[in-house]
Amino acid sequence: MSAYIPDLVASRVSDRARRQLDVVAKFVEEECIPADPVFEAQIGEGASRWENHPAIIDDLKAKAKNLGLWNMFLPKGHYKESPGYTNLEYGLMAEWLGKSRTASEATNCAAPDTGNMEVLAKYGNDAQKAKWLKPLMDGEIRSAFLMTEPDVASSDARNIQLNMRKEGDEYILNGSKWWSSGAGDPRCKVYIVMGKSDPNNKDPYKQQSVIIVPAGTKGIKIHRMLNVYGYDDAPHGHGHISFNNVRVPASNLVLGEGRGFEIIQGRLGPGRIHHAMRSIGASERALEWMLMRINDPKKTPFGKQLRQHGVILEWVAKSRIEIDAARLVVLNAAARMDDLGPKASLKEIAQAKVLIPQMALTVIDRAVQAFGGAGVSQDTPLANMWAQIRTLRLADGPDEVHLQQMGRNENKRGTEVAQKIEAQKHKSEQLLKQHGVLRSQPGANIQHKL
Amino acid sequence: MSAYIPDLVASRVSDRARRQLDVVAKFVEEECIPADPVFEAQIGEGASRWENHPAIIDDLKAKAKNLGLWNMFLPKGHYKESPGYTNLEYGLMAEWLGKSRTASEATNCAAPDTGNMEVLAKYGNDAQKAKWLKPLMDGEIRSAFLMTEPDVASSDARNIQLNMRKEGDEYILNGSKWWSSGAGDPRCKVYIVMGKSDPNNKDPYKQQSVIIVPAGTKGIKIHRMLNVYGYDDAPHGHGHISFNNVRVPASNLVLGEGRGFEIIQGRLGPGRIHHAMRSIGASERALEWMLMRINDPKKTPFGKQLRQHGVILEWVAKSRIEIDAARLVVLNAAARMDDLGPKASLKEIAQAKVLIPQMALTVIDRAVQAFGGAGVSQDTPLANMWAQIRTLRLADGPDEVHLQQMGRNENKRGTEVAQKIEAQKHKSEQLLKQHGVLRSQPGANIQHKL
Amino acid sequence: MSAYIPDLVASRVSDRARRQLDVVAKFVEEECIPADPVFEAQIGEGASRWENHPAIIDDLKAKAKNLGLWNMFLPKGHYKESPGYTNLEYGLMAEWLGKSRTASEATNCAAPDTGNMEVLAKYGNDAQKAKWLKPLMDGEIRSAFLMTEPDVASSDARNIQLNMRKEGDEYILNGSKWWSSGAGDPRCKVYIVMGKSDPNNKDPYKQQSVIIVPAGTKGIKIHRMLNVYGYDDAPHGHGHISFNNVRVPASNLVLGEGRGFEIIQGRLGPGRIHHAMRSIGASERALEWMLMRINDPKKTPFGKQLRQHGVILEWVAKSRIEIDAARLVVLNAAARMDDLGPKASLKEIAQAKVLIPQMALTVIDRAVQAFGGAGVSQDTPLANMWAQIRTLRLADGPDEVHLQQMGRNENKRGTEVAQKIEAQKHKSEQLLKQHGVLRSQPGANIQHKL
Amino acid sequence: MSAYIPDLVASRVSDRARRQLDVVAKFVEEECIPADPVFEAQIGEGASRWENHPAIIDDLKAKAKNLGLWNMFLPKGHYKESPGYTNLEYGLMAEWLGKSRTASEATNCAAPDTGNMEVLAKYGNDAQKAKWLKPLMDGEIRSAFLMTEPDVASSDARNIQLNMRKEGDEYILNGSKWWSSGAGDPRCKVYIVMGKSDPNNKDPYKQQSVIIVPAGTKGIKIHRMLNVYGYDDAPHGHGHISFNNVRVPASNLVLGEGRGFEIIQGRLGPGRIHHAMRSIGASERALEWMLMRINDPKKTPFGKQLRQHGVILEWVAKSRIEIDAARLVVLNAAARMDDLGPKASLKEIAQAKVLIPQMALTVIDRAVQAFGGAGVSQDTPLANMWAQIRTLRLADGPDEVHLQQMGRNENKRGTEVAQKIEAQKHKSEQLLKQHGVLRSQPGANIQHKL
Repeated sequence: MSAYIPDLVASRVSDRARRQLDVVAKFVEEECIPADPVFEAQIGEGASRWENHPAIIDDLKAKAKNLGLWNMFLPKGHYKESPGYTNLEYGLMAEWLGKSRTASEATNCAAPDTGNMEVLAKYGNDAQKAKWLKPLMDGEIRSAFLMTEPDVASSDARNIQLNMRKEGDEYILNGSKWWSSGAGDPRCKVYIVMGKSDPNNKDPYKQQSVIIVPAGTKGIKIHRMLNVYGYDDAPHGHGHISFNNVRVPASNLVLGEGRGFEIIQGRLGPGRIHHAMRSIGASERALEWMLMRINDPKKTPFGKQLRQHGVILEWVAKSRIEIDAARLVVLNAAARMDDLGPKASLKEIAQAKVLIPQMALTVIDRAVQAFGGAGVSQDTPLANMWAQIRTLRLADGPDEVHLQQMGRNENKRGTEVAQKIEAQKHKSEQLLKQHGVLRSQPGANIQHKL
Repeated sequence: MSAYIPDLVASRVSDRARRQLDVVAKFVEEECIPADPVFEAQIGEGASRWENHPAIIDDLKAKAKNLGLWNMFLPKGHYKESPGYTNLEYGLMAEWLGKSRTASEATNCAAPDTGNMEVLAKYGNDAQKAKWLKPLMDGEIRSAFLMTEPDVASSDARNIQLNMRKEGDEYILNGSKWWSSGAGDPRCKVYIVMGKSDPNNKDPYKQQSVIIVPAGTKGIKIHRMLNVYGYDDAPHGHGHISFNNVRVPASNLVLGEGRGFEIIQGRLGPGRIHHAMRSIGASERALEWMLMRINDPKKTPFGKQLRQHGVILEWVAKSRIEIDAARLVVLNAAARMDDLGPKASLKEIAQAKVLIPQMALTVIDRAVQAFGGAGVSQDTPLANMWAQIRTLRLADGPDEVHLQQMGRNENKRGTEVAQKIEAQKHKSEQLLKQHGVLRSQPGANIQHKL
Repeated sequence: MSAYIPDLVASRVSDRARRQLDVVAKFVEEECIPADPVFEAQIGEGASRWENHPAIIDDLKAKAKNLGLWNMFLPKGHYKESPGYTNLEYGLMAEWLGKSRTASEATNCAAPDTGNMEVLAKYGNDAQKAKWLKPLMDGEIRSAFLMTEPDVASSDARNIQLNMRKEGDEYILNGSKWWSSGAGDPRCKVYIVMGKSDPNNKDPYKQQSVIIVPAGTKGIKIHRMLNVYGYDDAPHGHGHISFNNVRVPASNLVLGEGRGFEIIQGRLGPGRIHHAMRSIGASERALEWMLMRINDPKKTPFGKQLRQHGVILEWVAKSRIEIDAARLVVLNAAARMDDLGPKASLKEIAQAKVLIPQMALTVIDRAVQAFGGAGVSQDTPLANMWAQIRTLRLADGPDEVHLQQMGRNENKRGTEVAQKIEAQKHKSEQLLKQHGVLRSQPGANIQHKL
Repeated sequence: MSAYIPDLVASRVSDRARRQLDVVAKFVEEECIPADPVFEAQIGEGASRWENHPAIIDDLKAKAKNLGLWNMFLPKGHYKESPGYTNLEYGLMAEWLGKSRTASEATNCAAPDTGNMEVLAKYGNDAQKAKWLKPLMDGEIRSAFLMTEPDVASSDARNIQLNMRKEGDEYILNGSKWWSSGAGDPRCKVYIVMGKSDPNNKDPYKQQSVIIVPAGTKGIKIHRMLNVYGYDDAPHGHGHISFNNVRVPASNLVLGEGRGFEIIQGRLGPGRIHHAMRSIGASERALEWMLMRINDPKKTPFGKQLRQHGVILEWVAKSRIEIDAARLVVLNAAARMDDLGPKASLKEIAQAKVLIPQMALTVIDRAVQAFGGAGVSQDTPLANMWAQIRTLRLADGPDEVHLQQMGRNENKRGTEVAQKIEAQKHKSEQLLKQHGVLRSQPGANIQHKL
């Protein structure tokens, strides 16, 4: 169960992190994965799925705390609350967390709490920290992040419309949010909300603010929870919520009016790395299930085990290659974040954001296919993992938005590159003259006559 | 709403079928698709999903019957009960049925009833027809087809193990089945069951028999219904069923002992065409939803509508090309079935079986991606359609089994082809001599010295 | 050697065409393919490649004429010179021609002569026909089509810049052309040239004219021949040609000034079908070579023949599926052209234009991979076929231009489709009310308290 | 021109290597790339291409030596002749070398000399080193590596058949070799030859030996040079060579009889890394050319520059992602080789071997497509680079052989993984009991009655 560390990153992983990584691996494989079906069973059926509190998660949390597996996501050097791991080191741990449905929550490393804790730790004032950060850090409450809206193209955050109007020492919120992940959980006590506080500001990146809204504030209505390919993801869930004259103390504003963009941009980088590493863990687990299946002595179509059939071993090999490549891409982004911070790592983070979910979906889908009917059903973790990761191609903006942005950035060196190539061509012509040779061109002596 | 008929098949579509096709199109678009959400709502929640009978389906069935839209799947010339359309003509209709969740059932053209009706019409005796075929044809009951088993690689049907032991004038059945689609429905009154009646027969293709088993016979237990991704597909569903000393009259045997393979092989061809054409309809609907989305004036990330962004129109174009190509492939198989029967069309049917679901998944996934969060949720039909069609890459054997089989068949001409090429090479050498020319080989005059 | 006709088109192929098709198949397999290496050998080496006239082609032409295999490309009903086959029937023949390097020329069905003959037959006056069409139809001379230019994005034909200035009863031509395929051949006696005769015309589609220019006219200079990957395609070749005050009689103008667009648009449809069908033939030949290879008893890596290894049979099967699907797409476009003419078939032709080369490249590349080193070398026809077909993704505009155009066209029904879906949603709401049911939404009862 | 170093490897690159890397980058961009067309022009035309010695390469070699850019491929710590860079550091340099046709040779880092020098340095005795290694290290002669044979599946090296019979103090060689890269060069003075010396040895991995054969030894015949997609790659080239009673002193045997496998296995690892990194350099150059093209103000189809069209920026972004990911994969293998040696790095090397050429072909093909006709012609370096890299999917065994091997290796943990999953399932069942909950299974209460 000793955790895998690629050669390229070995020197960046402290001995303490290595030991911790082995503890994480063992905890996930021996405690969390076996607990996953219990978690699901304890949620129950029907409407009560949104009310039940699966007891097993508290057992796991106690065990995790006891093992020192708590809040590892908070990178060292940036937060005094950090247990002292780098983004890269935590990335390696997050891979293991991604193998289990319960592991991230059990170690208090689950989204969206992680991003919300980062926001509060980085931008919150002392009162906000005492009231909201502390119970989140202690795993006593959970939270939601309310940014996406149903009626606009919110992949462009400038389109966000939830209205924040100041009146006295309160803000009055009106509008709708959806894909408010985590909002279904009865333990979700606080929303971090992005709204439009200054719609007429000439700078479209200063019209937004972020405010802390206690769940259950009057005027908030959870209309429904959204499904993901038939899964409700209860009790966590993905909420569709409306705000009707919701009054929130102005002191709940984070950082200051008009600074919403600044906050969410700082929030997104690490979260994308976490999602990506968890997806790699999910891919590893899918590969393991596939290996189990193709060696199953009971499954012998046409007299051979699956591993002896056609393309199966090639699927295994390709999955191995693709997972290993993807891991390096994410860890490279994490390393850069560790060295230079998220802003200097936007390209590397975006690469991971786009590449990893597509890889993971491919690997998991191969495992589904190897399993046949069991693969799409509740009898394997595969279909559910696939559906979860499918949303990552959309969350925080669809792949295509990121690809366009990356393309534009890469294209910025177009002029410089063109000049270089022109200079190279020019020098070639000079050298040809100098050496007294001509480019040979086939057919240059063709003479057609009338 | 006039239905689309590719040029290549136009001459094969009778005027009567054309008119019918337009009626189908109108019925699906104006009656069935609007009824789909009502159907879903009437199923309800929780355990009652398996008990409720959505009233809207009876309304639709009445309308369909009234319009003459009933049992179109039974091909003319082969069944006296047929309304008189060819496989190709029905294929064009099935495309429209595939756009709606309710349309196939509303027109009594839903799997697995269709295949079961074919079996009974083709192989059943008069008593079996009177008792089971008639109410199925009339849409009064529904049925399930029990072939796949959980503990074996049933993509190789020789592995099937449900035991059928004859005792007096009864068969006693023991074993397990799963993916028994339709078994959840309270109206499902009869199972067509494939079992092993003669495990020691030297011919592995004569060990199986097919028998009619009334749902609810003592000893039958529905353990659970299988999910497809997170969907339960209630009330139809996919059953996991066990047989514990289930006694069935020997007169329920279809065609005769040891003829199970013969029956299921005849059964599979048309069904694959139906599934394929419905998948094309689903793809068309996904493309329509995508067109709606990319022209939505409210969705303008970065100041442009989606259709103006990067790859979107290329997705539309590729989807158009891929759907249109796929349709021709299925219709070609249908035409061959019409001309020469299913046995002579195995290659063409297998091509459709493999090609169409992969195409449909690609097209639908593009639409999901264009929709963002709404695409994976209950707010569009896309995620559900995707999950349904994903199972077609597994049902009746995974793609890979069919590809291996097709590869082996194509490879049968390997020797003949090799001989032809050798003969061509030989003749080339003769011609070169005859014309007194030498193949030029670069570097043939290189002389390196020590 | 009996030629393959898909079921879907069988009824469109006359008995005469069937017999002819078998003659074509036999001629290609037994005469042309064996002659291909002789043709290549007779071209010779170095600069003389552009001067030699491979004698074998004359032998083949004599044989072809004798067999009645001549000018089959000219569709019946449109040209009195036609031998009387439909576009679809000729398409089936063109597939066979595409298996051999020499077959198209041997039967006087080679591009660009075919397109040029169509232009002259359709738009030429009697004098032009007598002087140029007759010797082309008789296979006495060859021709080139000069449209593409090196310095502009000529995928948008409005960008064409070769200047045509009228002076007295002459046009004076100045400018450059490249990818003038066929211009290298010593038998190439005539160029069909597209130029800009009226650059200030307000209608950008009326600025161009087409004129007949005798090869060898003073002022024409073939600068060089372009390579395709490392192939020069001599003696045919792809010319880069400049026009320096080239004087051409005004009587050589085709159809009239400003009618260039009209001419080239009529020219492109059938040619794309021909290229596509020939590419299908090339794919079939690649598959045959692959079958030879994977059954080669001398090639047994790790103790098994290639066909017994991993993915090989899946490659065979996928190639079979993809070729067969592609053929139907092209033949559907041909059928529509036969029924409704090229203008009404733009969509179908564009689908074939984009789909078939990509399919063929995939199939051929699999064969290359199966052959190992021999696949990329001169020892198989594969690498050369691949390179030829690679250009089809660029010729007459790159795939991406066609996809954008197709996307825009498909998107024209966006509004209509959106309205339909809105109406369906509206009706659903009405039905829900009518039936007194509510859409169930998970989590709708969640009540979080402060 | 400062060279790019991914964050993940930064700590492994010494200051000296960084400075050297910048020198390499500058040398390649400013000297080698401009010299490439001169090199091609100096080779000339026809048969003389195999005789000419392009003078420019000597200029470049002198400059390179002067800059200290010589033999960087020999890793430090393993060879006393090494200039002192790790495999990883040289890998970064090799990326730059891969951008130019002449750069590898100019710095004496060209295959197959590099691998041959490694063999001689590692396994050669003093006399062999003095006679062959020294002039190779000095760049005075070149060499070829003769392993692949035309008549067997030599991807399985056990199939190699060139006969080596000992007679007195000589070996007599009989047989054929092909794809003997470098054999065309007039400066190629020595062949490293793998043959079968002990065909009856029970251990199939001890039947082979490696022997040094002077080019031009009596009995050696270069039949021809093989083309790669029409390119002859003169003067280097790819030879097809026969051995007819070629007598070689037994003292030329490397390491000892029967140790051929041992030698070639040691030889392959670093070479695969070098090829992979050069392919990444080629991909970077292709991307640069593509950036030039899409910003070309003269190329404005439909009124917009290419970069403003549809998918183009997405191609740029994907190329950026894929190149960057691929680089990490190769560097990870190089790092592991540096830490643990090639044998412990087989998996990582194989991953790079398979992944990088496919990536590079994709990136280059996008650039070809962006260029249109120029892309496939001699006017860009793209088509030639594509053809070169296409061979890497075949050289040293096709991708599929490596994937099967990797699949088998990965599958070795199948049993262990299956046991782990079984244990997890078992523990889940225990936990469910312990917590007194049941897995919920939809439909478990269905009761159908007769």
